[in-house]
Amino acid sequence: MKALVYDGVETLGYRDVPDPVPAEGEQLIRVSAVGICGSDMHAYLGHDARRPAPLILGHEAAGTITGGPKDGTRVTVNPLVTCQTCAACKSGRENLCPDRQIISMHPREGAFAQFLAIPDRNLIDVPDDNPLRKAALAEPLAVSWHAVKIALQALHPDMDRDALVIGGGAIGLAAALALNAMGVRRVTIAEPQAARRKFLQTTCHQTVTEAASGPYPLIIDAVGYSATRAIASACAAPGGVIAHVGLGEDSGGLDVRRMTLQEITFIGCYTYTAEDFREAAQAIFDGRMGALDWTESRAMSDGFSAFQALHSGRIAAPKIILDPWS
Amino acid sequence: MKALVYDGVETLGYRDVPDPVPAEGEQLIRVSAVGICGSDMHAYLGHDARRPAPLILGHEAAGTITGGPKDGTRVTVNPLVTCQTCAACKSGRENLCPDRQIISMHPREGAFAQFLAIPDRNLIDVPDDNPLRKAALAEPLAVSWHAVKIALQALHPDMDRDALVIGGGAIGLAAALALNAMGVRRVTIAEPQAARRKFLQTTCHQTVTEAASGPYPLIIDAVGYSATRAIASACAAPGGVIAHVGLGEDSGGLDVRRMTLQEITFIGCYTYTAEDFREAAQAIFDGRMGALDWTESRAMSDGFSAFQALHSGRIAAPKIILDPWS
Repeated sequence: MKALVYDGVETLGYRDVPDPVPAEGEQLIRVSAVGICGSDMHAYLGHDARRPAPLILGHEAAGTITGGPKDGTRVTVNPLVTCQTCAACKSGRENLCPDRQIISMHPREGAFAQFLAIPDRNLIDVPDDNPLRKAALAEPLAVSWHAVKIALQALHPDMDRDALVIGGGAIGLAAALALNAMGVRRVTIAEPQAARRKFLQTTCHQTVTEAASGPYPLIIDAVGYSATRAIASACAAPGGVIAHVGLGEDSGGLDVRRMTLQEITFIGCYTYTAEDFREAAQAIFDGRMGALDWTESRAMSDGFSAFQALHSGRIAAPKIILDPWS
Repeated sequence: MKALVYDGVETLGYRDVPDPVPAEGEQLIRVSAVGICGSDMHAYLGHDARRPAPLILGHEAAGTITGGPKDGTRVTVNPLVTCQTCAACKSGRENLCPDRQIISMHPREGAFAQFLAIPDRNLIDVPDDNPLRKAALAEPLAVSWHAVKIALQALHPDMDRDALVIGGGAIGLAAALALNAMGVRRVTIAEPQAARRKFLQTTCHQTVTEAASGPYPLIIDAVGYSATRAIASACAAPGGVIAHVGLGEDSGGLDVRRMTLQEITFIGCYTYTAEDFREAAQAIFDGRMGALDWTESRAMSDGFSAFQALHSGRIAAPKIILDPWS
């Protein structure tokens, strides 16, 4: 099959590799659509030790089961593979499983490829009226869905729920959509890139600002750099909640003195539970996440140039979807 | 009256000052016992802009109402003076009141003095069988009670509740006692000072370690320096909770990458609600906080030397109580 392989810092190779062989309990998926994530970009830049070259990246996939009794079933893929037996898995917090794996992270190959092997339990059927290109958004939307859910759970019930989302990429935009879907109407996205700001306003109908001020009871940091954490801890209202999703920089930025004096809660958020993934997929399928018309499609054979364009900030759309068959 | 006045960096003066004059709704308290807090020490070292010299420090006070219909009533003092009308006060989170004041912070004089003026609503009656020296611990114990309460509320119900308390001063020890009082039996205190470790083990019957390792589902950082936050974020179990009480250093120390990948929650904690203060005082009065025999009493006239001894690490007891009348 054809695959887009991470070969080293800022180098991707589009070439023939052996087809994956499904293990017991796994299905072979013919991949139709696969998104480029910020974490793929971190890996491409050589910043992710969990993704050493050579490796097939990509974990936001939808496609069709190939072979076996479910042949032809259209599915979206939960890429988080967990043990199902530990205390975390048993309590429904699979994302905290000590043996968790994600496709596209060592040792599992990813989905920038024509075929993918993945446990059957990780698949969610896609209704006929939903294109697979849209279903491939289930993964990033689940990340945001999960973060918004735990942030809302942590927020004191007497507080307003006005929200600031820091970062207008796919995770930030999806967080705004998830907030809307959960009843939070007043959401502002802070995004420094002018072209993306315009795209978010016109195509996505979002309230956007270049520089945020506060106070906001609820903040989603969908970037995870020192600079964004500084904004988050400065703009959180007293008693407010910051949900932190990104892995941009390992430390720094938080104004801990202010967080202490104003009783601000900071919650690290990582991936999703199996339940949150199903809920986010369902929210796509029944239209609660909007038209989802803010993606841009590219041939996987042009994947390398898509990474280069993303890295140079030349793409306004928050998400690039690759087609492994063109 | 006699008072111990902060006159500038590392300088305290014991001298005559005018008696305070109670405003409407306030009582005049004859102070019998007043503890030295870590924040008094920050101020003494010139590190607290909220406490500019000259100022009477001290906010952990118990004494007797002087004059009026309640003359002679023994009371402990909630030093947090709030507006009672804002949204935070109305929802029972008085510690988030935007107009909050604390005695010993500009513009309110503190309790290192023979008399103190304080709103009547800030007073809690002390039962006859409780010495005022013990009742003066209500304030630091309320700080810890509040932090432990919100940490336990934030902890996922499926998780164990083994706890690490970082710092064996009064706030750390009180956090351990509050954890015990709320049913958490397995508590370890991490304390670097050998003499205090021995004191905590022998006098206070606590489990103590010099250097903590993890994982702990529940961590109370009762110090608030970069180094202690580094310990907290390294030792928290996946999905765990850190309650952060101290104001040692303004920023730094947190391993945000690990907190994100392991979904660790960090909660800034400041003072207490009025309800938490009452609960902590009641826990003292009915014996749930133990014998509280770990304080050391000094004459307020020797207060300056007590600060010097505390600063040099020569005092094993977690709390010094000053007597303004000797």
